[in-house]
Amino acid sequence: MKWKILTVGKPALGYAKVGVAEYLDRLKRVVPVEHVALKESGSKANGVAQLVRSEGDIRVVLDERGDDWTTAELVRRIDRWELDRVKQVSLLIGGAAGHEDEVRAAGDVILRLSRFTLQHELALVVLLEQLYRAYSVKRGEPYHR
Amino acid sequence: MKWKILTVGKPALGYAKVGVAEYLDRLKRVVPVEHVALKESGSKANGVAQLVRSEGDIRVVLDERGDDWTTAELVRRIDRWELDRVKQVSLLIGGAAGHEDEVRAAGDVILRLSRFTLQHELALVVLLEQLYRAYSVKRGEPYHR
Repeated sequence: MKWKILTVGKPALGYAKVGVAEYLDRLKRVVPVEHVALKESGSKANGVAQLVRSEGDIRVVLDERGDDWTTAELVRRIDRWELDRVKQVSLLIGGAAGHEDEVRAAGDVILRLSRFTLQHELALVVLLEQLYRAYSVKRGEPYHR
Repeated sequence: MKWKILTVGKPALGYAKVGVAEYLDRLKRVVPVEHVALKESGSKANGVAQLVRSEGDIRVVLDERGDDWTTAELVRRIDRWELDRVKQVSLLIGGAAGHEDEVRAAGDVILRLSRFTLQHELALVVLLEQLYRAYSVKRGEPYHR
């Protein structure tokens, strides 16, 4: 099962850039993952582009109105997708203004990382760290800090 | 009202180090904040040191068994502490192994940043970003990304 991370723009904040690179690098050693940074083109067009690029995938939409999962729940979900022979899961992260309704409506899962409103670049770091953590759990490996 | 951030050790991960510095720097421009990185001395001693260093303060203990707040709830809490003339709020972040029971028991508030288990250095970045966000809201300023 492959992962596609769809963001609007590349991280601009120094620490987020480094954090994203760090966890993408770790993840790539354990699972195929691709980060697609779409060009910022306004909220509506961003949404359309994310939906086009995730056509046919399981869509996980990151949104502050979503469900809260624990790490264990994420692991169980990944296990189930694997059993169901899902080919690719796309993670959709909105830009600074969040997602359009159309994107939320098209999501198979709406996921909230925190009740706190997180800066969207920081949210990407949190999400990637969590994916890395989930695969460490799945592989029965110690989590490498 | 002043803030004291009590951590065990300094961030070791590159991106976390930069992220913590970034948000501490932003926070210091709007509110007095001090980061005290205690020497790692084992879970029990770490807890005792955090309690000693936060004596008399409002203690906010970061823990995965805590309450989930929104940014708006954090802002309201800060407003109330200010009205109550609270002098200092201490934020207690555990080391890699989390907090001892004694620390949780001594907390005025037990706060959870996410249902996901976050790497503790990343948790510190999330917490500081959130404090910065709360003060931007309080001051009626746009959030500077």
